[in-house]
Amino acid sequence: MTDLQTAAPSQPSTRVRDLLERMTLEEKLAQIVGFWEKSEGEAVAPLQGEFEVERGLDDVIKDGLGHLTRVYGTRPIDAVERARWLWDKQRWFVNETRLGIPALVHEECLTGLSAWGAATFPTPLAWGSSFDADLVTRMGEVIGRSMRTLGVHQGLAPVLDVIRDPRWGRVDECISEDPYLVGTLGTSYVRGLQSTGVHATLKHFVGYSASQSGRNFGPVHAGPREVADVLLPPFEMAVLDGGVRSVMHSYAEIDGVPVAANPELLTGVLRDRWGFDGTVVADYFGVAFLHLLHHVAADLGDAAGQALAAGVDIELPTGDAYLTPLAEAVRSGTVDEALVDRAVLRALAQKEELGLLDARFDDEPPTEVDLDSPEHREIAAQLAERSLVLLTNDGTLPVAPDARIAVVGPNADRTAALFGCYSFLNHVLAHHPDVPVGIESPTVLEALRREHAAQITYARGCAVDDDDRSGFDEAVAIASDADVAVLVVGDHAALFGRGTVGEGCDRDDLELPGVQRELVEAVLATGTPVVLVMLTGRPYAVDWALGRCAAAVQAFFPGEEGGTAIAGLLSGRVNPSGRLPISMPRSAGAQPYTYLHPALGGDGDVTNLSTVPTLPFGHGLSYTTFTHTDLRVAPGATTDGGLAVTVTVTNTGGRTGADVVQLYGHDVVASVTRPVAQLLGYHRVELAPGQSVDVELTVPAARLAFTDRSGRRVVEPGELRVWVGPSCAEREVEASVELAGETYAVTLDDARWTHVTAV
Amino acid sequence: MTDLQTAAPSQPSTRVRDLLERMTLEEKLAQIVGFWEKSEGEAVAPLQGEFEVERGLDDVIKDGLGHLTRVYGTRPIDAVERARWLWDKQRWFVNETRLGIPALVHEECLTGLSAWGAATFPTPLAWGSSFDADLVTRMGEVIGRSMRTLGVHQGLAPVLDVIRDPRWGRVDECISEDPYLVGTLGTSYVRGLQSTGVHATLKHFVGYSASQSGRNFGPVHAGPREVADVLLPPFEMAVLDGGVRSVMHSYAEIDGVPVAANPELLTGVLRDRWGFDGTVVADYFGVAFLHLLHHVAADLGDAAGQALAAGVDIELPTGDAYLTPLAEAVRSGTVDEALVDRAVLRALAQKEELGLLDARFDDEPPTEVDLDSPEHREIAAQLAERSLVLLTNDGTLPVAPDARIAVVGPNADRTAALFGCYSFLNHVLAHHPDVPVGIESPTVLEALRREHAAQITYARGCAVDDDDRSGFDEAVAIASDADVAVLVVGDHAALFGRGTVGEGCDRDDLELPGVQRELVEAVLATGTPVVLVMLTGRPYAVDWALGRCAAAVQAFFPGEEGGTAIAGLLSGRVNPSGRLPISMPRSAGAQPYTYLHPALGGDGDVTNLSTVPTLPFGHGLSYTTFTHTDLRVAPGATTDGGLAVTVTVTNTGGRTGADVVQLYGHDVVASVTRPVAQLLGYHRVELAPGQSVDVELTVPAARLAFTDRSGRRVVEPGELRVWVGPSCAEREVEASVELAGETYAVTLDDARWTHVTAV
Repeated sequence: MTDLQTAAPSQPSTRVRDLLERMTLEEKLAQIVGFWEKSEGEAVAPLQGEFEVERGLDDVIKDGLGHLTRVYGTRPIDAVERARWLWDKQRWFVNETRLGIPALVHEECLTGLSAWGAATFPTPLAWGSSFDADLVTRMGEVIGRSMRTLGVHQGLAPVLDVIRDPRWGRVDECISEDPYLVGTLGTSYVRGLQSTGVHATLKHFVGYSASQSGRNFGPVHAGPREVADVLLPPFEMAVLDGGVRSVMHSYAEIDGVPVAANPELLTGVLRDRWGFDGTVVADYFGVAFLHLLHHVAADLGDAAGQALAAGVDIELPTGDAYLTPLAEAVRSGTVDEALVDRAVLRALAQKEELGLLDARFDDEPPTEVDLDSPEHREIAAQLAERSLVLLTNDGTLPVAPDARIAVVGPNADRTAALFGCYSFLNHVLAHHPDVPVGIESPTVLEALRREHAAQITYARGCAVDDDDRSGFDEAVAIASDADVAVLVVGDHAALFGRGTVGEGCDRDDLELPGVQRELVEAVLATGTPVVLVMLTGRPYAVDWALGRCAAAVQAFFPGEEGGTAIAGLLSGRVNPSGRLPISMPRSAGAQPYTYLHPALGGDGDVTNLSTVPTLPFGHGLSYTTFTHTDLRVAPGATTDGGLAVTVTVTNTGGRTGADVVQLYGHDVVASVTRPVAQLLGYHRVELAPGQSVDVELTVPAARLAFTDRSGRRVVEPGELRVWVGPSCAEREVEASVELAGETYAVTLDDARWTHVTAV
Repeated sequence: MTDLQTAAPSQPSTRVRDLLERMTLEEKLAQIVGFWEKSEGEAVAPLQGEFEVERGLDDVIKDGLGHLTRVYGTRPIDAVERARWLWDKQRWFVNETRLGIPALVHEECLTGLSAWGAATFPTPLAWGSSFDADLVTRMGEVIGRSMRTLGVHQGLAPVLDVIRDPRWGRVDECISEDPYLVGTLGTSYVRGLQSTGVHATLKHFVGYSASQSGRNFGPVHAGPREVADVLLPPFEMAVLDGGVRSVMHSYAEIDGVPVAANPELLTGVLRDRWGFDGTVVADYFGVAFLHLLHHVAADLGDAAGQALAAGVDIELPTGDAYLTPLAEAVRSGTVDEALVDRAVLRALAQKEELGLLDARFDDEPPTEVDLDSPEHREIAAQLAERSLVLLTNDGTLPVAPDARIAVVGPNADRTAALFGCYSFLNHVLAHHPDVPVGIESPTVLEALRREHAAQITYARGCAVDDDDRSGFDEAVAIASDADVAVLVVGDHAALFGRGTVGEGCDRDDLELPGVQRELVEAVLATGTPVVLVMLTGRPYAVDWALGRCAAAVQAFFPGEEGGTAIAGLLSGRVNPSGRLPISMPRSAGAQPYTYLHPALGGDGDVTNLSTVPTLPFGHGLSYTTFTHTDLRVAPGATTDGGLAVTVTVTNTGGRTGADVVQLYGHDVVASVTRPVAQLLGYHRVELAPGQSVDVELTVPAARLAFTDRSGRRVVEPGELRVWVGPSCAEREVEASVELAGETYAVTLDDARWTHVTAV
């Protein structure tokens, strides 16, 4: 699959070229690796233990250093104190190394800067639920400002993997199963972060989320069309529209070739076609994994040569392959030093762009920082509120002000239940159980007690993931004595088997973990109306519960203000407006499933099984109601120009609320099979009761394009069905559009396509 | 992905060319379609109802006819009577049509000729369990002779889809999850059938078995390397080594392109690369499905044009697209008549090859036939016996001659439980409940009563697939009073949701259907030792049972002699020798899984989940024991020549038995990821107690080849680990082989590779 059009990356500056000329091989290699101080406690990256660094920083990096790895996010340490340490180290690089080049400092920042005491925002699945690109941009800005203050230059976020299987543990780090939603929100994050001068890093380029049976690192069975049409578009949007400055390779193999060794993707697509001229960084240990896990490289030197040739510029977190093994490979002639030079030029160009080639660090590090300021908290609160999805409601919600509430469940009074797996709390503090959280983060129970005037009782009932049912009796007892039972169930996010979701925490069933389903059944049996609140990092198969609970709320880890947001939704202070960014699955055995399936991935006469998910992509209720009427397609819908659709949205209920207007389309006949429904545009709009507004959604040609049988990315003429409705599954108002013109091959300019949704 | 080498198909004869010259467009089109008499009862093909033929045979085919569809296999009718009808029709074609060309008669024959009273052999999964290529060849021969006698020219078998997901309903029609086992046994079937002058048809070229989440017709997510290295090899073997004369396209779409419209596969791979010069036939209604289900064709004429251009020569079962719609498309100029001519030439060449261009049908049809002769039954019995897999045994088996046996379970006394979904019984007689089976086929219970002298009691316990537990008490009662309980559980094979396995009977869980697990648990609770016999069309997730049952037997639908074979195994008359041709799955949520996974598809530090199946590919016990020792690799293992391995196998137990010697290999470092284990050769050998024999297994280069990063099919030099053991998971004796030579691109001659296993 190739595109007709390519863009040339920009050339390195003379200054950078001159620098390269002066460097020894060791100095070059030092610039394309990271250094990670030996950490205590358990590993926070896969196989981390296999690469323990025996020597200290000063020994290792006399030749300089590319990246300082996770200065703030490896252990709980006061940020000001750590900044002082960092400035010292940077001055050392400036003054004590021959070339005087400081290190680039990178850090995780998916749900906020990974540092003790820093604001922790909702997880990306919650961004997806919010359908709120502007708010994600603002979040990126405040995260970036914190990083900038602390001397961090690059953030390892966002994750732009398109969800393909909810069994995968890293689903909570992803935004959606829809590439357009992933791309628009991911690009918003990039814009926000990079507006502060901090470089964003797209993860994980590409294919990681499509692993076999949802298992972490499992082989990816995908053809080039699926890669091009589903998996790559979010990255393309963030590169072309977002101008992202760094990209991280995926650990995955696709159809037998590990991406870290694939020049067609890392160089052909990314640089030659899209014109990307930033750096490609390794996912942690990903270069060595070519030898150790994929077995496509005979040793670390071979792995280094393959990764470098493919286009991996910087090895992270440390130089396991790019230091000694690569030096030997270059000296023995098996790896061309020109490949090293290419990577070093890119590394130096990035430092030049960041101002690091001129930095002396003769300023003072910050003496006080507020990493969780009122602005942080306001954004965290708004995003949490807008991300909550009301799945069902028989009128029990909002809870009456005088209702006696029994709060039950393992996630009701657990701070960690609000956070994703890469939050500082679950990622780092998990190894330091005696260290306080460092941020204000009321649990659902605490927030409800603040929010609700009448009687509240509480029983945990059970843990997230064991088989202890000894707490059921107390839970049943308090539920029996209450007017409504709020059951807060779900996940514990952690890494490598220590949680129920998160990196290396995959599932082969999609039942609520542990005995939580039994707890819900036990409380349901009391007859007290049950409000089910799921604090999870993936959607679970809860068809059995939805018809029997009075109401159900899906809260993808909503962050530090999430407990308060949920309490607000329950009380009615917050009118829910989130929409499912992923289908609620029928069962684990029905996976993989995506709403973007062709006709034959759906129900029909040829199989006995239904694929219909428990709840469809895009679904979400409000305390008010909306109608969508009068769908109009502007004249002149063409293959090269796309189309514009206007629809009238009306708040037909009794209170102010926000609707997410969702435009879907279906290409009726195409040269390849096409999805039965595809999100073409969306727009969040807040309306007072009775208020009506026209929303215009413009759909650029690129959004309609796909890879045809010859491998070109085209828009084909003919009938397109478009509709607006409360989810992908319901056509509340629809129209047939005839796309005029010839088959049109989209250009790179067409592909600059984000944020075209407008009122 | 392309190969360097191609083979040119042979050219049509002058006679055939002359015939074409004389034909009208209608006469041409008539030769490339089938005709299927309107059948009563329910549909036996998907969406069959949408294409009801309103007119009779004589009206439709005045211009001649390509194929007569399913003359014997559509309804229960006496074969002799039907042959008379057929000869009459053929004479009509000879005498009453302008060109005088008889019809080609095709019929299903997967587990024997689909005709009332014809022998029904074990299902292909049982062929796979037998690892007995010669016996499969003999089966093909006797099936072919029956067909030949009845005037049938082409059989729609074998199915060469490599199993990729046990949730798929058609798994029972497939041989194995290993391409080499599929290819060798499938080619054996082709050789046997075609030795009688009947043409075999490879199904389903290609990809059908890899559908998303195991759902019938679901989209296939596979890249070109997986297609080339896993899915295509069995077809290649049957074309190049087996000389198969016909191929059926797959319903599937692969990466967005339906195979029926894919010239790269149907023409590029099949004809241009492999030199295939037979006919490509449509899977039933598959041409129309391009329009109706895949939506890549605007109408039936468009569908016809695309299929014809791709290389589908004959539309089956009828001319829904290739008659009127194609005629209109040719007349309007949207389809080139040259494409029609190409297909007609192939159709006529096949008829010429079959002698049909000279046939006058002035002989008499058979006045008596024995479609289930002693020879049929002997082969059916041998194959059934060799296919039974003893999974576990604590010594309870064989059952002591004086033991009182309680026989329990829905498949214990059910004839249909012995047969696959395309057997005449389950496929056709299912719609004629009052018609007798027509063949002798004792159930397990009946056979046990013949075989076992002591007391036998029986209770059904429950049905295959409902929730009626009212029979549990009786089952528990008789089990409590017995020395051993034989529980015969499993599937009912049928089509389109009418069964628990079979075409259109997919599963999203892999528990035993209905309440059968509960029945087993109830009988286990009696404390009476339980022998679990699974009569199924797929492996189920029965980890929970294997440790608690005294013994377990996997019987993939073993055919008309299957009940007797099982009784023989239980009594000890038959010493079990089958081996699992497919992994016993852990759970539905762990799918898809294949033992041919790269390292990262297995267990490791990067995911919490285990993929280890309940029992591995190749596993199977005996009443005796075998050791494998002294593995020797012949000197001169090279990339272009492959290798030869000799191992000593010894019967170390107390009775005569057959072992399946299994040679596996693993390419330690390759340019693409390679399976951790791969069957390189196998050989079934019978040994007396104490007897030892050396088995030499030669591994041709083609078996080691894979598609490298440039798309070439190569053997790479370097270390290969090889081992022999009782399954893919156990290295009883192993060696390291250094493959010498340069990277070698295999040629078409290398690819003639089957049946190289030898003593």
